Amino acid sequence: MFTVGIDFGTNSVRALVVRCADGEEFGSAVFPYPGGRQGVILDAKDHHLARQHPGDHLLGLEKSVNAALAAAARKRGFARDQVVGIGIDTTGSSPLPVDANNRALALNPKWKRNPHAQCWLWKDHTSIDEAAQITELAASLRPQYIAKCGNTYSPEWFWAKILHCLRVAPDVFDAAYSWVELADWIPSVLSEISKPERITRGICCAGHKALYHESWGGLPDKEFLGMLHPKLAELRDRLYEKAYDAHTPAGKLGYEWAERLGLPANIPIAIGAMDVHYGAIGCGIQEGVLVKVIGTSSCDCAVVSPDLVPRNIPGICGIVPGAILPGYCGIEAGQAAVGDIFNWWTEVVCEGDADLHATLTKEAARLKPGQSGLLALDWNNGNRTVLVDPMLTGLLVGQTLHTTRAEIYRALIEATAFGARVILERLKEHHVPVQRIVCAGGIAEKNPLLMQIYADVTGCVMQVAASTQACALGAAVGAAVVAEAHPDFPTAQEAMTSVLPKAYRPNAAHQRTYDELYRLYRRMHDAFGGLDKSADFSRVMKDLLVLKRTARA
Amino acid sequence: MFTVGIDFGTNSVRALVVRCADGEEFGSAVFPYPGGRQGVILDAKDHHLARQHPGDHLLGLEKSVNAALAAAARKRGFARDQVVGIGIDTTGSSPLPVDANNRALALNPKWKRNPHAQCWLWKDHTSIDEAAQITELAASLRPQYIAKCGNTYSPEWFWAKILHCLRVAPDVFDAAYSWVELADWIPSVLSEISKPERITRGICCAGHKALYHESWGGLPDKEFLGMLHPKLAELRDRLYEKAYDAHTPAGKLGYEWAERLGLPANIPIAIGAMDVHYGAIGCGIQEGVLVKVIGTSSCDCAVVSPDLVPRNIPGICGIVPGAILPGYCGIEAGQAAVGDIFNWWTEVVCEGDADLHATLTKEAARLKPGQSGLLALDWNNGNRTVLVDPMLTGLLVGQTLHTTRAEIYRALIEATAFGARVILERLKEHHVPVQRIVCAGGIAEKNPLLMQIYADVTGCVMQVAASTQACALGAAVGAAVVAEAHPDFPTAQEAMTSVLPKAYRPNAAHQRTYDELYRLYRRMHDAFGGLDKSADFSRVMKDLLVLKRTARA
Repeated sequence: MFTVGIDFGTNSVRALVVRCADGEEFGSAVFPYPGGRQGVILDAKDHHLARQHPGDHLLGLEKSVNAALAAAARKRGFARDQVVGIGIDTTGSSPLPVDANNRALALNPKWKRNPHAQCWLWKDHTSIDEAAQITELAASLRPQYIAKCGNTYSPEWFWAKILHCLRVAPDVFDAAYSWVELADWIPSVLSEISKPERITRGICCAGHKALYHESWGGLPDKEFLGMLHPKLAELRDRLYEKAYDAHTPAGKLGYEWAERLGLPANIPIAIGAMDVHYGAIGCGIQEGVLVKVIGTSSCDCAVVSPDLVPRNIPGICGIVPGAILPGYCGIEAGQAAVGDIFNWWTEVVCEGDADLHATLTKEAARLKPGQSGLLALDWNNGNRTVLVDPMLTGLLVGQTLHTTRAEIYRALIEATAFGARVILERLKEHHVPVQRIVCAGGIAEKNPLLMQIYADVTGCVMQVAASTQACALGAAVGAAVVAEAHPDFPTAQEAMTSVLPKAYRPNAAHQRTYDELYRLYRRMHDAFGGLDKSADFSRVMKDLLVLKRTARA
Repeated sequence: MFTVGIDFGTNSVRALVVRCADGEEFGSAVFPYPGGRQGVILDAKDHHLARQHPGDHLLGLEKSVNAALAAAARKRGFARDQVVGIGIDTTGSSPLPVDANNRALALNPKWKRNPHAQCWLWKDHTSIDEAAQITELAASLRPQYIAKCGNTYSPEWFWAKILHCLRVAPDVFDAAYSWVELADWIPSVLSEISKPERITRGICCAGHKALYHESWGGLPDKEFLGMLHPKLAELRDRLYEKAYDAHTPAGKLGYEWAERLGLPANIPIAIGAMDVHYGAIGCGIQEGVLVKVIGTSSCDCAVVSPDLVPRNIPGICGIVPGAILPGYCGIEAGQAAVGDIFNWWTEVVCEGDADLHATLTKEAARLKPGQSGLLALDWNNGNRTVLVDPMLTGLLVGQTLHTTRAEIYRALIEATAFGARVILERLKEHHVPVQRIVCAGGIAEKNPLLMQIYADVTGCVMQVAASTQACALGAAVGAAVVAEAHPDFPTAQEAMTSVLPKAYRPNAAHQRTYDELYRLYRRMHDAFGGLDKSADFSRVMKDLLVLKRTARA
């Protein structure tokens, strides 16, 4: 038996054909989206805008799955009729408007070129004002809504984007019957569901991005939404009452799509979830294991037993019963920039090419902890966890006339490790157990120096997921469970996922030095992040941003 | 009438032949010291060590003066017998040991190769422990000694160096009859003075570097010196009782040297002073004018009427009656790194060549004040004024994922301008008048962007000295006064010195933005410099240095 996991990323779709018995990857394929710039529709006049054409998603779905199946067919022991299920993960929150027939508005020639009718990609930041308005209204009327997401609603999320659309493109809003997260829409397309009301929505997107929680009856109430805009309250009736965890299939493969993909009709489609959540499953997440997906930014996932929830952890962006792993409470945290900071240093400041990473890593690896005398804050893109403040900026201290680019490169790696430790300590303070950390993503696979520094800074054993396609693998695991190839997630994960043999273990001497450096990092973190009220330097970064905006205006 | 100004720098000697009537420069010549590395004797095992061979000084004296006179002779209206005086400036504190015949110990074959018998160049930092010991002893027993130098005795200064020699090379110390600052020794050589007791010592070096003050009877008392080392107390008897200002000649040109230089014997030799002090004279210093010599570091000189002194200004490194301009109290302040910070950025971090300064300056000039959102502290080489703390380090805040090297370059220029403003405000708070600023040094001449930023940050009109050899010119002015070519310094300066026509005037809009940025700079400066006791972050930089030292050990 095989399942297919399909991972809709920012620039491409990846499909992976996996054997349910042992997780062996029989075939995979990548399809880059043809539209926009590397698949992303941009606006030269507004760098906040980032959209994606649903036609690209459907084209990529067909092409990548067929290519992966063709690759699998070249291996002994595979046949298309042995595929028992399909799982989907996508970026999120990436909602798109659909008509009453569950057709993406952008597939209608009338709206085809309208950017607001496309899928609003996770990293679209056009809705900053709307997010602030939602945060403010919730803070005064429904504090519980945002208590589970660091008391701050993000411009990247569902309601902010829809409210922004309502304001800047009321015609698009009015033409839309409903809005669907891409993670829910793709399974509904494969299941050939023709009414938005019938889409099975996943708890991951609902709980983490749309303020859905069973305790207050699902989505935010109509009174609250109506105060944002009367039409939002009306829209609520055309959204959903209930969201489901990964035990519930999203549907069954319809005949038309079965033919297009050359797969058996009626096989189950696992519920859609965000890439990192299925990625966590593909990394073997369980209680006591923190999964870190380290790329341009980082996303951290943990799960805790339901008897320890509901509760809030200050500064943690999402705590959602049923999210990530069914039967647990899913917790999501993250750093707004990790690889992006290293790219900034090598490419923007040092004006080097991609090879410079390797050169600087080599030189940085020769340094001992503390040897550079440098300390950095990893806030070049703001802070997501635990300060939840996009208006924070980077800081570097300790430079002399001899400080080198490699020393600064290492200080930036260390800064992201300290940022990771802040998250870890916050989780532990709130009794989320973390015995080891499993990492996925290009940086984890390619940078042993970073992995060792993370082990030394956090004092945790760091492991790397064996699959380079942890997200698609996790979706395939989800498909295997709904297809009953395995009785439950732990069994499926045990059979289908693994970590690389090499683990990074903390070096005791390095740990001692990093404990000292971390103490200084915390001092700076708390002062510039505004946690230390006796030495609040948080205005420094904000005042600089005000001056910057004024100068540019 | 003409005078010759001779400027003994770190790497070379420069001689300048100047017409007394109007300051016209008839001839000049540079002679790079042949010894060591670019004239500086280094020790591969100890990067603190920096010495200079007195033989190089004497060779350079003869060569540079003869070459400058030869150049002048090619112009109409000059003849060697019209030279009426000679002025000398040197780096300082740069003391050297001499024998009982005022012969430099290093000219004796026995000591020729011993680094401790050479001239201890100003930037020699081998005497850190001795400086700390002097500071400590003075703080408990003679606080008045260090009250005028920011309560900190520097390892670059006279007593620290001699005490260090006594410890590491007692044979050299014992062989020395006395110690002389290079600024006093060169005039004594030209005057053919054969007993160290007869050397006329200048108040500039004595007051700024050797704790000399009339109010406590000249040099530090024997009890104090004896507590540092009994032999230091003995040495005091072989030093000097009184130091003189620039109205007193150091001597008259002896017959042998008159022949070597082809100049009339018996013409007066002006008293020797440190380069920056004669440089201030060459820039036309007077009450209300601050002279800034901006190079790798900066040195600021001001003078105030004697009726306003003696008094102390916290954090200002030297306040010496009679220093710089006779009849005034000379005040010296400075920044430990200016050009060095820009060199660090372009050469060490960006790995560019000297041309990169021009490229980054061009890009930085396109930015408006505040536009980068960056703020830096200019402490990559510690802070000389007003914090007097070499153990402070650099800081940069406000960086995003888009921050460019040119933005950082500009932020570093601005940081040095803010540092300059701190000095200026401290002077003004203590009633030292500053109406305009006259700058000298390569950066002032070559970087209009920096000059404009300094004007905008300080709110002062910035001018640039017309002579590119302000130090040698100032020495020539001193010679003109002792030769009675002019009745006094103001008259001589009026006739012989000038500023370039282009002045940099503050832009009111830029000033407003920089006032905001300066407020933030002060907040960081006071917190990280330890002035703000309620938010003292000074330990952050120091703890990082401790970790650095530990890691390197």
